[in-house]
Amino acid sequence: MNSKLSLWEAYHRRLTVVPAVGLQVDTSRMDLDDGWLAGMAGKVAAAHDEMDRIERGEVVNTDEQRRVGHYWLRDPARAPEPAITAAIEETLARIHAFAGQVHRGEVRGHGGAFTHLVVVGIGGSSLGPRFVAQALGGAGDRLRVAFLDNTDPDGMDLVLGGLPLPRTLTVVISKSGGTKETRNGMVEAAARYRAAGLAFGAHAVAVTGAGSELDLVAREEGFLATFPMWDWVGGRTSELSAVGLLPAALQGIDVDAMLAGARACDEATRVRAAADRPLDNAAMALALAWYFAVDGRGAKDMVILPYKDRLALLSQYLQQLVMESLGKERDRQGNVVHQGIAVYGNKGSTDQHAYVQQLRDGVANFFATFIGVLRDRAGASMEVEPDVTSGDYLEGFLLGTRRALYESGRRSITLTLDEVTPHRVGALIALYERTVGFYAAMVGINAYHQPGVEAGKKAAATVIALQRRCLDQLRSHPGVAVSAEGLAAAIATPDEVEAVHQILEHLAANGRGVTRIPGATPFDASYRWG
Amino acid sequence: MNSKLSLWEAYHRRLTVVPAVGLQVDTSRMDLDDGWLAGMAGKVAAAHDEMDRIERGEVVNTDEQRRVGHYWLRDPARAPEPAITAAIEETLARIHAFAGQVHRGEVRGHGGAFTHLVVVGIGGSSLGPRFVAQALGGAGDRLRVAFLDNTDPDGMDLVLGGLPLPRTLTVVISKSGGTKETRNGMVEAAARYRAAGLAFGAHAVAVTGAGSELDLVAREEGFLATFPMWDWVGGRTSELSAVGLLPAALQGIDVDAMLAGARACDEATRVRAAADRPLDNAAMALALAWYFAVDGRGAKDMVILPYKDRLALLSQYLQQLVMESLGKERDRQGNVVHQGIAVYGNKGSTDQHAYVQQLRDGVANFFATFIGVLRDRAGASMEVEPDVTSGDYLEGFLLGTRRALYESGRRSITLTLDEVTPHRVGALIALYERTVGFYAAMVGINAYHQPGVEAGKKAAATVIALQRRCLDQLRSHPGVAVSAEGLAAAIATPDEVEAVHQILEHLAANGRGVTRIPGATPFDASYRWG
Repeated sequence: MNSKLSLWEAYHRRLTVVPAVGLQVDTSRMDLDDGWLAGMAGKVAAAHDEMDRIERGEVVNTDEQRRVGHYWLRDPARAPEPAITAAIEETLARIHAFAGQVHRGEVRGHGGAFTHLVVVGIGGSSLGPRFVAQALGGAGDRLRVAFLDNTDPDGMDLVLGGLPLPRTLTVVISKSGGTKETRNGMVEAAARYRAAGLAFGAHAVAVTGAGSELDLVAREEGFLATFPMWDWVGGRTSELSAVGLLPAALQGIDVDAMLAGARACDEATRVRAAADRPLDNAAMALALAWYFAVDGRGAKDMVILPYKDRLALLSQYLQQLVMESLGKERDRQGNVVHQGIAVYGNKGSTDQHAYVQQLRDGVANFFATFIGVLRDRAGASMEVEPDVTSGDYLEGFLLGTRRALYESGRRSITLTLDEVTPHRVGALIALYERTVGFYAAMVGINAYHQPGVEAGKKAAATVIALQRRCLDQLRSHPGVAVSAEGLAAAIATPDEVEAVHQILEHLAANGRGVTRIPGATPFDASYRWG
Repeated sequence: MNSKLSLWEAYHRRLTVVPAVGLQVDTSRMDLDDGWLAGMAGKVAAAHDEMDRIERGEVVNTDEQRRVGHYWLRDPARAPEPAITAAIEETLARIHAFAGQVHRGEVRGHGGAFTHLVVVGIGGSSLGPRFVAQALGGAGDRLRVAFLDNTDPDGMDLVLGGLPLPRTLTVVISKSGGTKETRNGMVEAAARYRAAGLAFGAHAVAVTGAGSELDLVAREEGFLATFPMWDWVGGRTSELSAVGLLPAALQGIDVDAMLAGARACDEATRVRAAADRPLDNAAMALALAWYFAVDGRGAKDMVILPYKDRLALLSQYLQQLVMESLGKERDRQGNVVHQGIAVYGNKGSTDQHAYVQQLRDGVANFFATFIGVLRDRAGASMEVEPDVTSGDYLEGFLLGTRRALYESGRRSITLTLDEVTPHRVGALIALYERTVGFYAAMVGINAYHQPGVEAGKKAAATVIALQRRCLDQLRSHPGVAVSAEGLAAAIATPDEVEAVHQILEHLAANGRGVTRIPGATPFDASYRWG
């Protein structure tokens, strides 16, 4: 720990300013060592080299044989092929045109001009749009936005039950169209439209890959429009593609400003800093600070504390961006490394009254990122005490908590934005996208695939297939009670007895034709059809 | 890792069923060792002993010289003094009576019967009410609920700007009344009521300690009612006091059922299990599983994955309950231990598309808690494929992800509820309250104070005081530009120059009479009054 005055000196040396996007990154309270920084020069240069290859269009996502093109989205001229440049520009023009038609009521629902929007998507097709909707939305929204981001039936009822369907536009987002949560959400939404006497397609838009399952549905059902998802944009970096831009534009958010902010941030963080001043690049400053904090191997968690309600979903957005990108079993050489950085947090100063107790006094297994915003609100503030506003307290709590953590040896990064605008939010997204890319290059992993996600999907498909066999077996012996063990044996999967048990309990609880006959213990229950 | 069949056997041995509250706790995938469990017998007995002392009313929160009485709230006859029993019962009766008056329109706003409710509070005065409002609310709510849980001016504008104030009831919750975020929220809300020509007190209710700052305000402003907060109920365990019950009752939630569920869970988890079957107590089963997973010292994070949208805020609720209770520098003997367990998570299967990639493949620094609900929705479900519903997929993803994690050596607890009702939510709260109490006793810490929170508050007060001095100094020399260093020296706090710099930047950004004159670097800026 350093004295306050040496901290002031460190602040001078460790502050990275990006005037073009109103952003400052302060790593002074990370206690970065100059010698360590100098030793990272090779990794820094190599990370820039990899980023250059990415931006040039090389296939750096080698496992999936895909290019990584999200940087082109905000600067289409940088795309490696004219066809990509044209596709980006044309899509943006179509988004503007479509949003305009909706806002002017030229494209409308059966009940009149659209007043509500429901976005059906999950993961990268939901977290970005949700973060941006909360960060930049408000009373002036052109459409009120809701999200369907799960396959929870009750959750769907809560969301869809609150919408005026004849004036609600549904945007379904899925690259492959095969994501079951999204498919299920769409199917349930469509059924509700139909039950209300409305043609689903006349109230629906798709964002999907050409030729996907969803693309076919959109054609069959006569969707109002379909916007593309390209294989060179990954889900977690798709916010500045149609995935994020279409919902934002429909909500009334200035998507051109978002793109301009991202482009300006890219321009500032694409530049290689002088070898002796690696922190002059804001994204590299963050990546180096992360590396230093977690020892390049996820040794500490990253706690995200935005002191601004609008940015409360940033931590969920970054959970995906960071953890799905960095959480990998193997490095690019195939060595088992179990990489990653765990990310959590909500917002300050609210979280001070939740878990900052542990951050200050408890397990020292994290570093924090404070995010402050200079501008408090749109108008002037009243004083809650002489000379003091609510916003002064927010600032005071940020500085006070940062200080209290540092006093007990907990390090933190402080990121300051001048204000929360579309331009700044675009920049923030770009900043973290490049930071994750730099960090991944420095630890030698592929940040652009997600092989571990498949295992859970496959295991779920196994469970669904098993359920079908259970139902077939029960139905073919109506009225005959059988235990889970008996049923598992009957369908020749005795080793799947636990899954069979869970499936039967779930079916019986939901009036699915299966009657449960209790036993002495949960394992002695039996089940019959009818 | 065990085979599927040995997992089925482990499931038999490791499943704890609490029929009274429709709850099952499955620790089979924690790989608890029987020898280790036997070795914990002494700690288990001691944890029960401490819990007995707590429930008898001994002062176990020795630092603050307070009793810990949240278990009495749902079983008032267990309180150590008749006066406490009477206070609990009388308060519950008053909550029912007041909510009834509001629902019948007998207590009403200037604009008519109340239709909206805004809860102003933070930490324990917000997280429980928010969790319960989302878990149990819906289209049938008697009042629509919003929350003001921060001192962010823009966040207040977003919440308050959306409310019809003449028909909005404001509930201000603060034990001491001195919590600045809550005080500021109340002051800003009151100003808005007044600006709309409405008497704030005629639309306000307080939940606070007798004689607190807020109690005085409530008297002066003629609040509609005041409900008590007692010093023997801590903020993070106050959901079943007026803090949680009043907002829930106003929303139309069956608070008696919540209390009954908590009481039933207490009754089931108060009982000492046979020495050779410690897992027969569900709360002890959880506490032991935690201890085993984190080595009794926070060695792993706890990831909370409720597969039910309604329970998505459980992880934030548990973040506070677990981290503020367990995150302690010292044990009861005064040894430096830096205890705690980091908690994060949102909901499944949504999070599978965010960070489950890292959970399966990346840093093995966590254990998971899956929370499943047997009942999918109120009505019947459509089939999204032959024989398969959206809810089957939700169940399939839970089972599949659990399996995929276990295959890569990541352990998990699975908690299953039959349904999400007030009774079950009350039980869930009680279950985790007792689990945290057991765990704290086993690792020998005081779970009922939060000394680390004070440091941040004091540091924030220092910043606010510093701001006043900065403003005084600038105002006394109008038009004279001074640097941060110059101002810090002028007010005789040269070592606080960094805080002075931050304060000046914030004041200048918010039209507070301070003009910023840019310099070559951010540190060369100067500032003047006017």
